[in-house]
Amino acid sequence: MAKIINGKEIAQKVRADVTKKVEKMIAQGITPGLAVIIVGEDPASQIYVRNKERAAAKAGINGQTIQFPTDVSEVVVFNKIQELNQDDSIDAILLQSPVPSQIDEEKMQSAIDPNKDVDGFNPLNIGKLFANRAGYYPVANTPKGIMTLLAETQVELQGKFVVILGRSILVGRPLFALLEAENATVALLHRYTSDELRHRLLQQADVVIAATGVPGLVRGIDLKAGSVVIDVGITRLPDGHLTGDVDFLAAQDTVAAITPVPGGVGPMTIATLLQTTVELAAKHHQMELQEL
Amino acid sequence: MAKIINGKEIAQKVRADVTKKVEKMIAQGITPGLAVIIVGEDPASQIYVRNKERAAAKAGINGQTIQFPTDVSEVVVFNKIQELNQDDSIDAILLQSPVPSQIDEEKMQSAIDPNKDVDGFNPLNIGKLFANRAGYYPVANTPKGIMTLLAETQVELQGKFVVILGRSILVGRPLFALLEAENATVALLHRYTSDELRHRLLQQADVVIAATGVPGLVRGIDLKAGSVVIDVGITRLPDGHLTGDVDFLAAQDTVAAITPVPGGVGPMTIATLLQTTVELAAKHHQMELQEL
Repeated sequence: MAKIINGKEIAQKVRADVTKKVEKMIAQGITPGLAVIIVGEDPASQIYVRNKERAAAKAGINGQTIQFPTDVSEVVVFNKIQELNQDDSIDAILLQSPVPSQIDEEKMQSAIDPNKDVDGFNPLNIGKLFANRAGYYPVANTPKGIMTLLAETQVELQGKFVVILGRSILVGRPLFALLEAENATVALLHRYTSDELRHRLLQQADVVIAATGVPGLVRGIDLKAGSVVIDVGITRLPDGHLTGDVDFLAAQDTVAAITPVPGGVGPMTIATLLQTTVELAAKHHQMELQEL
Repeated sequence: MAKIINGKEIAQKVRADVTKKVEKMIAQGITPGLAVIIVGEDPASQIYVRNKERAAAKAGINGQTIQFPTDVSEVVVFNKIQELNQDDSIDAILLQSPVPSQIDEEKMQSAIDPNKDVDGFNPLNIGKLFANRAGYYPVANTPKGIMTLLAETQVELQGKFVVILGRSILVGRPLFALLEAENATVALLHRYTSDELRHRLLQQADVVIAATGVPGLVRGIDLKAGSVVIDVGITRLPDGHLTGDVDFLAAQDTVAAITPVPGGVGPMTIATLLQTTVELAAKHHQMELQEL
């Protein structure tokens, strides 16, 4: 029977560490500041932003939410980003996705100061990641959180074969770079990968990371005995239940460890966002993170 | 018997197209300008830069080489880059690698204006490539030239499985992104990939791209019948002969098409550099490349 990777517990641990660091920063006169820009009334985004705000407050981070109406013009959002870039009390800026069509999301991501780019979506930071540059730069929080899950579960990556399903710039692509940096051999699969090739590669994988949003895409028979499975997918079924990309019940009998949905990757994203906020604040104020 | 992919011929075709475009640009009063900075006396670099200069001149491009002594300070190189960034007659800037240790090569690459970054090494351009952003941006010329070889050889990529050996930012990593953009499924292998895993993945690959500099790393028995092999490796043997990463004679009997060494990928790099120079010049002067 597989070990269930407890994302809630690991996220709790990350948050506790963040809270401790924030306390020390505040004692030195610095309160980390996170600004979240949200445009429009998308209910899922509203809930998500509210959760971020609450989690930031709980960790002692000064979170502020900037709400714009659905029909706000691009230049207003752009100017707000410029203002936050200049604002010394703000260490981290995030533009909640999705944005209405009059706003060019990539252009806004590029406008965020790379040193305050808490989501790691500025192409300059993406480029540093892909080039495996030395030094600190922010990385997208879901893949970064997955690396924490793997590290906390003591999954050996060097020399292992990892299959990633789904190549979004939010998850699959940055994960590819992060796993290569750990000297795993990585294959990146997507909608043009045939069923046959996907099955064949999955059967050889030591670690599988599924981030497609297609429930049941990974079946029990696709998986190798003793492998580790990280399920990033989260889909609400007609009956109201949440499910991932992996047939959890079937996989459980085969693999060594697996994340549940919900309670696996999900809790890591906000915890990692807080972690990145603190890292950016430490860098901004030239504090040594290790000493916090 | 495999088709031999004639890199010389395809590079000739690229150069002829570049020359034609340059003629049209000159007729409109624009001469594309390429500046190559070289530091020190490394003989291989000197030859390579001289070849670039000659090829640029032949295509009608205004090439200039800036030679610095080995002990030049970083700030002098940095200031020269700034000057070239400002120089309206220069469309493309290249810093010849390697540079002496007192110069931070990555810092210099980041200093080159992304719009004049003919090698595609500025992390902003790397980030756009990795994020598969729309629009034009320069891409490293060796991988870009390999994509031209594959296109000219009419190799189908969508849905195919491609194995890349070697993950440098010069070749393997950008190729990964370019092949994913063509909807291939790609695995990126490296020195930490075990012999067993490498053999197994190679045997499944529809396209193999070897860029390791390890002669004979890819054996005939590693390859699948009917696959396409691109050999980027180039090593001089003790007897003076040049060889690639692939056992060419053995591979020839198995695969559908293969590049020779020399005369395969080699000639594509400079031809593609000229191509990118013209693209940057067209963008700089707001000319439509299709109309040239």
